Amino acid sequence: MAYERKNIENMAAYIPGEQIDSPGILKLNTNENPYPPSPKVAAALGKCDVARLRQYPPPTARSLQESIAARHGLSPDNVIVTNGGDELLRMTIATFADSNDSIAVARPTYTLYQVLAAAHGCKLTNFELNEDWTHPEHYADLLNKSGAKVCFLVNPHAPSGTLTALEQIALLAAEFQGVLLLDEAYIDFVDPAISYQSERLLEEFDNVLILRTFSKGYSLAGLRMAYGLGNPAVISPLMKTKDSYNTDLISQSLARAAIEDQEYASETWKNVRSERQVVTAALREMGCVVPESQSNFVLATMPAGTSAEKIYLALKDQGILVRYFSTEERLENKLRITIGTPQDNKRLLSAMSALQEMS
Amino acid sequence: MAYERKNIENMAAYIPGEQIDSPGILKLNTNENPYPPSPKVAAALGKCDVARLRQYPPPTARSLQESIAARHGLSPDNVIVTNGGDELLRMTIATFADSNDSIAVARPTYTLYQVLAAAHGCKLTNFELNEDWTHPEHYADLLNKSGAKVCFLVNPHAPSGTLTALEQIALLAAEFQGVLLLDEAYIDFVDPAISYQSERLLEEFDNVLILRTFSKGYSLAGLRMAYGLGNPAVISPLMKTKDSYNTDLISQSLARAAIEDQEYASETWKNVRSERQVVTAALREMGCVVPESQSNFVLATMPAGTSAEKIYLALKDQGILVRYFSTEERLENKLRITIGTPQDNKRLLSAMSALQEMS
Repeated sequence: MAYERKNIENMAAYIPGEQIDSPGILKLNTNENPYPPSPKVAAALGKCDVARLRQYPPPTARSLQESIAARHGLSPDNVIVTNGGDELLRMTIATFADSNDSIAVARPTYTLYQVLAAAHGCKLTNFELNEDWTHPEHYADLLNKSGAKVCFLVNPHAPSGTLTALEQIALLAAEFQGVLLLDEAYIDFVDPAISYQSERLLEEFDNVLILRTFSKGYSLAGLRMAYGLGNPAVISPLMKTKDSYNTDLISQSLARAAIEDQEYASETWKNVRSERQVVTAALREMGCVVPESQSNFVLATMPAGTSAEKIYLALKDQGILVRYFSTEERLENKLRITIGTPQDNKRLLSAMSALQEMS
Repeated sequence: MAYERKNIENMAAYIPGEQIDSPGILKLNTNENPYPPSPKVAAALGKCDVARLRQYPPPTARSLQESIAARHGLSPDNVIVTNGGDELLRMTIATFADSNDSIAVARPTYTLYQVLAAAHGCKLTNFELNEDWTHPEHYADLLNKSGAKVCFLVNPHAPSGTLTALEQIALLAAEFQGVLLLDEAYIDFVDPAISYQSERLLEEFDNVLILRTFSKGYSLAGLRMAYGLGNPAVISPLMKTKDSYNTDLISQSLARAAIEDQEYASETWKNVRSERQVVTAALREMGCVVPESQSNFVLATMPAGTSAEKIYLALKDQGILVRYFSTEERLENKLRITIGTPQDNKRLLSAMSALQEMS
């Protein structure tokens, strides 16, 4: 017998990226940081006292909340710590949208949003990004007309890697009547010269909720730690709906060590930025169209006569995983490639170059 | 402006038990295991490789799923690993009940159920337990008449500690038309002579979902790890609605070490059982009414002329925390006391005895 809700019976599950963990495999398909976490994370792990696990952890991860607040020049009341970014995304829908309400995204985008909306019984309203990956004109009007309670905006955008300027986001936040969730999973890789500081939006707007994660910038995807930044108008209701002890004691302590070592983390970001240029230039050299990425991946459109699918499969045969989107029309003949270490990128580029010569 | 759903605006947040972490405080208020986790958990922690945290964890905690399945003589498909029991409870409501549907419990019970139902926009239908903490007669009929989509049944019951026999649960499962969640958070402390093996219910019933946790029996409340056992009719939809990577790599590995060391864990359960007898006998000696507990706590009704509230406050003054329920009529003049180590219990009992002599 089927006991689940109709919307759940009818929905398809989210399919995580391929995680093949065998020696020699080069994973450039799930946008992980190619560098290990800070040595201070290892030191924090070494100091964890297993005997303390007997007791419940601090329910809101208070010490970590304070470290995060300090990093952003905010108060701990502006911070909610979550079990990965997924949890914050799900909670945002469950807290701000009733069943049958509309959630808005601009396509193409992260496919998890569709799954989360369906699981909650919400409609996902899709708008199309412009050819150059910018948002549609009068986007706020379109959102308001759609009645969307929540809009997810990924910045830098995935899968194109392009960045929407802060000024444009401010205009959107001012006009949009629902909650604007800025999914900034990849924000740490933005060129610091751009001076993108979305915390400033919180001075003015109470409908902005900023998602940050330890998964990418701090090389801690395996730890499942993320956080939301916002005003009490959005943070307080989320605090009511989060699981009562949603993060564990070890993860709280390791995440704190990571965020307090900005020097180490920003060195990995610098390396990724510099390699992003190398990879972008080399792919363009091969005839690919590659928009300027501010993320730790690039989206490459294969040149005419070259099949992205064939390249994807041939690379896989050689133990190199990149992301190929078989179902999205807008992503036809494109590959999303995570920036690796210089050595990783050399391996990728020479494999691609050899495949192109053969085709 | 209020952006959240009406039901969330109107609901009260769950208030976790007092967690005062200072030296000399004796915490007998939140039912934690008084013994540390297995030495094998510490060994597993020592073996964690921080560099592996760079990548996403196994999304369903596959190795742990297999260890859990082996322990219960089930298949991994019968197991869902969750970020604490809270996550499974929340997901059960969100997966099997639409907004405005009814969730049933027998009162008094765990106050979190009320919060979770309210957060999802569900009604909580309360039935009253009998004087001796057994379920109402024809409980399945009452549940079916109420239209409940989910019934939470805590076994052993909290806060009384009493156990409902497996035969009775089987009758309920056979007749109830919704999903019967057995919250077995405290099951590890049941006398093995009773031979309570709820896994057997799964041979017959596809509407039974069993919650087990690492928090109590395995001394890992700080780790946030739990699991559900059930047939695919309930496990498969939950797999669709769980966060895509809901548990982290370190917790998966530590939980696995814990469940594979049954010898150590069952030694802590034996000690708790034997001390439970000591504490029960001593409290009865003082004139308290204490039902037979199969859990790691006892519920003591103070003798006439003694105020539970006063005892609670006086113990707190001495650095001993027990649980006093100020708002539940059925729990008037009662204290819920977690079973500690022999030394913990001696300290509690002599403090209580001294307070009684003074009153």
